[in-house]
Amino acid sequence: MDTTQNPAEGSAMAGCIAACNECNRICLQQIDHCLTLGGAHSEPDHISMLLTCASVCRTTSELMSMESDWYATLCDVCAQVCDECADACEELGDMEECAAACQDCAEECRSMVDNGNEEDDEDEDEDEDEDEQEITAGERIN
Amino acid sequence: MDTTQNPAEGSAMAGCIAACNECNRICLQQIDHCLTLGGAHSEPDHISMLLTCASVCRTTSELMSMESDWYATLCDVCAQVCDECADACEELGDMEECAAACQDCAEECRSMVDNGNEEDDEDEDEDEDEDEQEITAGERIN
Amino acid sequence: MDTTQNPAEGSAMAGCIAACNECNRICLQQIDHCLTLGGAHSEPDHISMLLTCASVCRTTSELMSMESDWYATLCDVCAQVCDECADACEELGDMEECAAACQDCAEECRSMVDNGNEEDDEDEDEDEDEDEQEITAGERIN
Amino acid sequence: MDTTQNPAEGSAMAGCIAACNECNRICLQQIDHCLTLGGAHSEPDHISMLLTCASVCRTTSELMSMESDWYATLCDVCAQVCDECADACEELGDMEECAAACQDCAEECRSMVDNGNEEDDEDEDEDEDEDEQEITAGERIN
Repeated sequence: MDTTQNPAEGSAMAGCIAACNECNRICLQQIDHCLTLGGAHSEPDHISMLLTCASVCRTTSELMSMESDWYATLCDVCAQVCDECADACEELGDMEECAAACQDCAEECRSMVDNGNEEDDEDEDEDEDEDEQEITAGERIN
Repeated sequence: MDTTQNPAEGSAMAGCIAACNECNRICLQQIDHCLTLGGAHSEPDHISMLLTCASVCRTTSELMSMESDWYATLCDVCAQVCDECADACEELGDMEECAAACQDCAEECRSMVDNGNEEDDEDEDEDEDEDEQEITAGERIN
Repeated sequence: MDTTQNPAEGSAMAGCIAACNECNRICLQQIDHCLTLGGAHSEPDHISMLLTCASVCRTTSELMSMESDWYATLCDVCAQVCDECADACEELGDMEECAAACQDCAEECRSMVDNGNEEDDEDEDEDEDEDEQEITAGERIN
Repeated sequence: MDTTQNPAEGSAMAGCIAACNECNRICLQQIDHCLTLGGAHSEPDHISMLLTCASVCRTTSELMSMESDWYATLCDVCAQVCDECADACEELGDMEECAAACQDCAEECRSMVDNGNEEDDEDEDEDEDEDEQEITAGERIN
């Protein structure tokens, strides 16, 4: 667990956990809405996107809650998933609440990644080339 | 969802889902064992590692089950988490079963990432620079 | 999904989802605290109680978010688990925040069970003997 | 955690964990199938049933893996959810694999509940009225 956590980061983390939980809630709630609307809203790809976003948000929230050493890695992935989900919601239309929750969660997650990296910069020099290997927001493997 | 899946990949995915579920099971089961042993086995960092590994394995398994477009990204993260957990178990000792489950899961997850990238190579040229941004196994943000 | 939901129940559900998420967060966070304290706080039974409570809270939250027909059943189990976890925290001491979060979640979950049963009373007579088979708060199978 | 576990129960539990994981996998996998078929298969209630079943199976599996004192309670709920999901799949048709996985999981879960109760009978007299309060399979609150 991350024992170097300072109060400011603790507060940021609480905000990010809340944003992840809210995004998880809205994505799951929207499945009913999307299946009722039908058409493009109920296509397998869109429902899969909502379920993926809900699932990654939940795990990211839990890793932050237990202050796992891996939370920043999950926050980074979560920000990317949320960005893609927000884009999908905006493209489809009639999903404003979900798009907003995803955008908010992506932003909170990105700020946790930045906090994590700043801490590393202060603490350790051996990880100096880490940023180069960080996944760029919006990139997906596969 | 990934509609380009071929039979060989389907079989590899079934093996990877099984490895993730087994690693999830063993990591959760070992918590009792570690807390009973006490000492270094029951230190917060080690229990957090087991819980993180269990949590990431479960989510990776679920994203593969629903053939989410994001499964390869999660497999990549899962392989890294499992590698670290296997190393921690080997270092501590008396955790052979857990180390083996983590190593097996890491290997299965890495093969899913490679499959995903090969597919991308065949299908799309626009993603040609993707490999550079892939997280290198063993790297953790934060 | 439960299409008979009225606005008052929707608001109660939002409160219950928030209480479940908060209880999940605190229970996971307390694991580090308990393992650092050591002694009775770090005994396998207590850590298992915290993990069980976190896990059941999360699932209950997700079933409410998707308005699953089964949410009241999970709320009923969740209230029992939270009651037991709150008692364990009070008995151990130095876990006030966790005990409070568990008690709050138990209360919110019980109000969802009552709402669910009232709705049934209005809608259907065929389920009239349901209350008799309801698990009594505090009872655990096994 | 349940320290009274005997080898026979350990083996039954391993079988039940495997059945829960398999049911989780199939239910999640079937969502794509159902949304592609459309019609009754893609109605909100059916997708919600599959997601509920997947979610409860996963939590039940995890509580067994960590040998939580609450696993038999979750097995009891899981058996009921799986029974309802199996019935829904059989009624709809074209979901044989899912119905079979649900039925198998329900059966394994029920045998865990019975094991748990037998143990209680041997160990404790104070819980003698517990069986009366057990949820009857097929009953759902709400």
